[in-house]
Amino acid sequence: MQMKTSPLAPETLAVLPPVVGVRLGAAAAGIKYAGRTDLMAMAFDEQAAVAGVLTRSHCPSAPVDWCRANLPAGRARILVVNSGNANAFTGKKGAEATALTAQMAALAMNCPVSDVFLSSTGVIGEPLEAEKFDGALQQIVRDAAPDRWEEAARAIMTTDTFPKLATRTAEIDGVPVTINGIAKGSGMIAPDMATMLAYIVTDAPISAAALQTLLGQHVDTTFNAITVDSDTSTSDTVLAFATGAAGVTPVASADDTRLAAFATAFADLMEDLALQIVRDGEGASKLMRIEVTGAQSDVSARTIALAIANSPLVKTALAGGDANWGRIVMAVGKAGEPADRDRLAIRFGDLAAATDGERAAGYDEAAMSAYMQRDEVTIGVDIGLGDGRFTAWGCDLTKDYVTINGDYRS
Amino acid sequence: MQMKTSPLAPETLAVLPPVVGVRLGAAAAGIKYAGRTDLMAMAFDEQAAVAGVLTRSHCPSAPVDWCRANLPAGRARILVVNSGNANAFTGKKGAEATALTAQMAALAMNCPVSDVFLSSTGVIGEPLEAEKFDGALQQIVRDAAPDRWEEAARAIMTTDTFPKLATRTAEIDGVPVTINGIAKGSGMIAPDMATMLAYIVTDAPISAAALQTLLGQHVDTTFNAITVDSDTSTSDTVLAFATGAAGVTPVASADDTRLAAFATAFADLMEDLALQIVRDGEGASKLMRIEVTGAQSDVSARTIALAIANSPLVKTALAGGDANWGRIVMAVGKAGEPADRDRLAIRFGDLAAATDGERAAGYDEAAMSAYMQRDEVTIGVDIGLGDGRFTAWGCDLTKDYVTINGDYRS
Repeated sequence: MQMKTSPLAPETLAVLPPVVGVRLGAAAAGIKYAGRTDLMAMAFDEQAAVAGVLTRSHCPSAPVDWCRANLPAGRARILVVNSGNANAFTGKKGAEATALTAQMAALAMNCPVSDVFLSSTGVIGEPLEAEKFDGALQQIVRDAAPDRWEEAARAIMTTDTFPKLATRTAEIDGVPVTINGIAKGSGMIAPDMATMLAYIVTDAPISAAALQTLLGQHVDTTFNAITVDSDTSTSDTVLAFATGAAGVTPVASADDTRLAAFATAFADLMEDLALQIVRDGEGASKLMRIEVTGAQSDVSARTIALAIANSPLVKTALAGGDANWGRIVMAVGKAGEPADRDRLAIRFGDLAAATDGERAAGYDEAAMSAYMQRDEVTIGVDIGLGDGRFTAWGCDLTKDYVTINGDYRS
Repeated sequence: MQMKTSPLAPETLAVLPPVVGVRLGAAAAGIKYAGRTDLMAMAFDEQAAVAGVLTRSHCPSAPVDWCRANLPAGRARILVVNSGNANAFTGKKGAEATALTAQMAALAMNCPVSDVFLSSTGVIGEPLEAEKFDGALQQIVRDAAPDRWEEAARAIMTTDTFPKLATRTAEIDGVPVTINGIAKGSGMIAPDMATMLAYIVTDAPISAAALQTLLGQHVDTTFNAITVDSDTSTSDTVLAFATGAAGVTPVASADDTRLAAFATAFADLMEDLALQIVRDGEGASKLMRIEVTGAQSDVSARTIALAIANSPLVKTALAGGDANWGRIVMAVGKAGEPADRDRLAIRFGDLAAATDGERAAGYDEAAMSAYMQRDEVTIGVDIGLGDGRFTAWGCDLTKDYVTINGDYRS
């Protein structure tokens, strides 16, 4: 299916600078698509530190199992990602395919298989013919170059309508370091073709433990704060790599005060990539930012924010440009978290829709309707009970979502 | 919006016999709709026993608060239901409107307000002008008759495309008793216009406590086993009334063995009404029955079954007639319940799609596609871990759902 670029796509793609010690490449291995790349490798000249966050699905894909086994050692020489086939729910054949891919990659890099990281995204339940990587993978590694970020980002796309790229710089001890990231995803999952994958790479010398802490600190407010359709992939993977090539004394712990600026840039890049994924939500025509405040705790605020972001009725109202605050009340009510109907306040942008449990005095339907025509809408909900807060991002539910997911396989 | 009748509607409406001691009526009170009835009353000649199950929403409507306060006494003389306005999120005005409606009803019936039960369904957040019931409500009570079940069922409709009616008979001590029920609902909620309401009435002499037990025993496998869009109404209400007019020695406890046949018929009627609601799911073109077996517990099976029924990706695949078992795996995985990928078995009807964690041997795409063209599809999922089982019902997600809920208010 040829999709037109999402109306919410960034106007220009970020151009990523090289990260010392990292080379990338892509090829067309013929896994599923004709006439496009579907195999990507990111090679590290020296062992890089690696950290990761993997899907919580109880039915994870074979590459997720593979990464989970290799992450504790915290070392990586190569990342290999294919699109077109998720190698999920493929039984023993799935584990054999990851082992075979890792062997090829390890041979090409002359490293142990424990230094190989893998992801696959695409159709579920079809055996992955990893033999097809033979030749192509070695070729990619041979030809890999430091400036192929966009090519790499394109090779991991499935139903994505644009490649997702972001870059930041920060200083550690006065030395500038680079953080690059690429991602893919357009439904939280559409097992035929989508899933959320993100890879972040820096030349800063940061230990795997510190990287893992940074990822853990920010994943809940970035990659885990977005939702397209409430569905969780069997394959979701976020990996962070640090080559350490920058000339800085190594950072062993995330508590190291020298890391402050880096941590901010790292979190900012994570948010940037996460938002690009929502912006490419299947069929999305509007982005919604949901700011919940006044909940009993941050965790409670998160549950409420995601209940709103995932409500089909809120999402269809957004698609229709309807400031339907009754549906927000409904979603708050169904979240199961402490809430007092008569203290709720709801706003769209700066326009009050409801206060103290009823329609706001001076509610202006015309102003509201005008606001709802925007591409990006902020929904503010104050629960009125405490200091808990959370911001989530979602998108609308349109007929195109139904078309993309209802007509795809057949 | 004029909607055409759901393609999943029953071919004929059930014709309900009178229940001794019960009279019904309806009128057009002009709450929201022009040219249709929107106020219904069910009057009991003598105090009836009453039991109920109310929404778990933390933001319930004013009539839900009212019923919750009156249910413990277990006595009812009249039920009053209006459509067009949910009287939800209406602050103090909402409580005033329920009090005013109850006063009118109590006066008309010459009973205490504690014997009055109320429901409202329709738009959220608009004050309910209960003054409009004055005159109309008294008229309904005066003219109420035992044979107006369909009229009553029509008066409580919102986005429903057909009235929901069911009847059963059973014997207690060899004496036949009748159980009638009416319901409305077409989204689990669409706060503009929908909500699930069901009222069950029998002439059997059953105590409020026994009725409450029966409701509690069966609500989880009937009204709480259906889902249209995963959204929970602020107003969901199921009430059961027993007039006791049948000539049988009263039944005080649900454990009374004389109640066995009645309990079966009662549960069967609850399932019948619940399925009629799914059959009228907004935009639904296909009904899905999800049978989960082999889970670690029944509760676990229920969570998994509802995760499948609520998954937008499963629902859009169903709309597209796609036997997309990869999405079923995804939904099992995201449910968060114990599951072992490599023991999962998935079938559509009697056709095996996956066994032991991979595509079933002899998987036949053509047979599968033919099966998926049906109006009613059974999805069987065996988790392979234990004896827990649960059956849930849902419907597909179509472009019509988006149209109904995206275009409605505007």
